[in-house]
Amino acid sequence: MKIEYRNHVLESDLQRVREIVKSTGFFYDFEHDVAVELVEDAFNKQEMSDYKFIFAELEGVTVAYACYGKIACTKSGYDLYWIVTHNDYRGKGIGAELLKVVHEAVAQDGGKAIYAETSSMEKYTPTRNFYDKNNYKLVALIPDFYDDGDGKCIFVFSL
Amino acid sequence: MKIEYRNHVLESDLQRVREIVKSTGFFYDFEHDVAVELVEDAFNKQEMSDYKFIFAELEGVTVAYACYGKIACTKSGYDLYWIVTHNDYRGKGIGAELLKVVHEAVAQDGGKAIYAETSSMEKYTPTRNFYDKNNYKLVALIPDFYDDGDGKCIFVFSL
Repeated sequence: MKIEYRNHVLESDLQRVREIVKSTGFFYDFEHDVAVELVEDAFNKQEMSDYKFIFAELEGVTVAYACYGKIACTKSGYDLYWIVTHNDYRGKGIGAELLKVVHEAVAQDGGKAIYAETSSMEKYTPTRNFYDKNNYKLVALIPDFYDDGDGKCIFVFSL
Repeated sequence: MKIEYRNHVLESDLQRVREIVKSTGFFYDFEHDVAVELVEDAFNKQEMSDYKFIFAELEGVTVAYACYGKIACTKSGYDLYWIVTHNDYRGKGIGAELLKVVHEAVAQDGGKAIYAETSSMEKYTPTRNFYDKNNYKLVALIPDFYDDGDGKCIFVFSL
């Protein structure tokens, strides 16, 4: 399985990102819109955008993507906003490999830390396990952040 | 000392906010610009802006201001982005009173929690004490977040 990576944003990514995010059955509709808005910003501004993208392609099909960016007012901190694999391609380690590609890109930009935020809810156990297995460290848990009983976990990966 | 509050943003606030922020000698130049950009956004979009402002006026002079807003993807979480008193008017309890006015405004909007982030550095001890004295609780400390040795403290006030 040979995955290829690209960071240039294509117009077709607007549609494909929506499909990828939707395929997971994991996000709310308004979150689909947020995901696409970020691609739009990156497509319109390309390297001037605060949102950087890396797309993973398998035989010409975009099967996963990550969105990250520098955190304003920090010297070398980056946020990992999204990392999503299309549901038809899950369980093949594509996400973990893509994550490594993100780490390399951030390191090349001079980044020293990457932060990933996710929910503390049961439903997000696979997401938290994903960060855990990829050597992210839980640095904070803010109770009831998203909603009652839905806290925010902040993970960090040090480069 | 009778302070009056207003939330409508005037064109003159662009200049005055820069003066207030600058007067403290506390922020970097790029942070002055960030402060003014938020006022600009609020002035241009008024109630459509994601940034809400409350200005404290003493005998017609704007002496302090706070900037806050709803946190996207949360049900009832708010961020307190800035709260600053002009250096000539510090030590009179204006900040603490303004903070209470912010809490009331957030409560009226249906907010249940207000988050304030600040540095863990020695220099910011008065800021951390301010939140502490006003019943904010430290919920997270992320080491080296802003820079090496400069961590991020996250405080929360529950409404």
